[in-house]
Amino acid sequence: MSARLKIAVAYDGASFGGWQSQSHANTIQDLLESAFERIFPQHLRVHGAGRTDAGVHALGQCAHVDLPHRRLETGELRRALNSLLPPAIRVLRCCYVAESFHARYSATRKLYRYRLWLAEILPPFESGRVWHLPDSVDLSTVRTAAAQFVGTHDFAGFAANRGKTDCDTVRTIYSVCVRQRGPLVTIDFDGSGFLYKMVRLIVGTIVQSGRGKIPLSAASEDLFSPRFRRTRLAAPAHGLILVRVRY
Amino acid sequence: MSARLKIAVAYDGASFGGWQSQSHANTIQDLLESAFERIFPQHLRVHGAGRTDAGVHALGQCAHVDLPHRRLETGELRRALNSLLPPAIRVLRCCYVAESFHARYSATRKLYRYRLWLAEILPPFESGRVWHLPDSVDLSTVRTAAAQFVGTHDFAGFAANRGKTDCDTVRTIYSVCVRQRGPLVTIDFDGSGFLYKMVRLIVGTIVQSGRGKIPLSAASEDLFSPRFRRTRLAAPAHGLILVRVRY
Repeated sequence: MSARLKIAVAYDGASFGGWQSQSHANTIQDLLESAFERIFPQHLRVHGAGRTDAGVHALGQCAHVDLPHRRLETGELRRALNSLLPPAIRVLRCCYVAESFHARYSATRKLYRYRLWLAEILPPFESGRVWHLPDSVDLSTVRTAAAQFVGTHDFAGFAANRGKTDCDTVRTIYSVCVRQRGPLVTIDFDGSGFLYKMVRLIVGTIVQSGRGKIPLSAASEDLFSPRFRRTRLAAPAHGLILVRVRY
Repeated sequence: MSARLKIAVAYDGASFGGWQSQSHANTIQDLLESAFERIFPQHLRVHGAGRTDAGVHALGQCAHVDLPHRRLETGELRRALNSLLPPAIRVLRCCYVAESFHARYSATRKLYRYRLWLAEILPPFESGRVWHLPDSVDLSTVRTAAAQFVGTHDFAGFAANRGKTDCDTVRTIYSVCVRQRGPLVTIDFDGSGFLYKMVRLIVGTIVQSGRGKIPLSAASEDLFSPRFRRTRLAAPAHGLILVRVRY
């Protein structure tokens, strides 16, 4: 009987060096692995649905881990993990899953949210959680630019090279939803999957359109052509939240 | 012509040693005074509407300062101050006021908010901004207990001694409003003024009632009697926000 555990994790990315294990060990993956190691006195590898960069937050990152046994009830496990983790990382849910489940390969859909703050003054409580844009950004242009990314495209122009070349850079974005509430603008991306830095590069392009720095017509023609890469601007990591992973 | 400036300030109290100037200089008052000193090359004293303890936040603290001249426009001043302050402190508004205005003595009313989080798991983004109460708290008892504080009372039993004895410990609370939205409970106190630690001591009492640790009937009889002090529990500083000061 499988002892593969699926966990949903929330974190405030500000204090950590991203998801993926590093030598300094101050990453979400490292801290989760240390917590599991304290409970089952052996090293256990935690597999995330995807890596998030330093500064990126999560409301519902997912991961799996193979436990040596399934004698612990999921509620006990969740409480034990949370007592061992810093308050900026919380295990929200645990459940045992079949061995065929894989946090990364079984994921069918991801929801990312990007937050902009369009006002001169950034309130202290939003610091490190939004991209602060005190200068004028035209929101109707932002909406039009955002809509151009919906559909199945080769997003090679919206990916940062992480040392290796992705073979397949075609992804589907099901929807991009732009909402405004006072100075806060949220842009929700619902897609089949996202390349490295893809959301931040798309948001950078959308915002540059909204600032009038990229003409919308040029954007729509060239958006997915390789020469568009020259104009790329990645939105800062701290405005990004991994909201949910669907299986 | 007076060069007395009134400022409204917001801050995330987590990183600072409270409002009042200290030798370590990492307080809101010290940081504001340093910012003013950079603009007008001389030391200027900033007078707050009230001191907030280490960890207490503000959405609308008020203060005044006497500038050596009024040649700077208030918008310029606000931008200059914010460029010199850490992101966790923001000057929201500046205006020149009459010399008869005093941030502390002219205040007629203050609004404080206390935030509770009633759920097993505290989300990372709420860490340091609520009092996390994972165990059962009865909200209808909380509402009844809260209502008992409305009115004009001698709040001596709900004040911490700050080295000196306040002569007058009578204060009026105009309303206490308890609201729930999912696991978040906010308790808004609107009053003529508040003694040192008064809101935190009241919230501690209210929560102890809601936990069944203080019988409500006893509370209502003894609430304002000196012997009630023995049962006092101050709610943690980080759940408290100074929302507004009225003049």
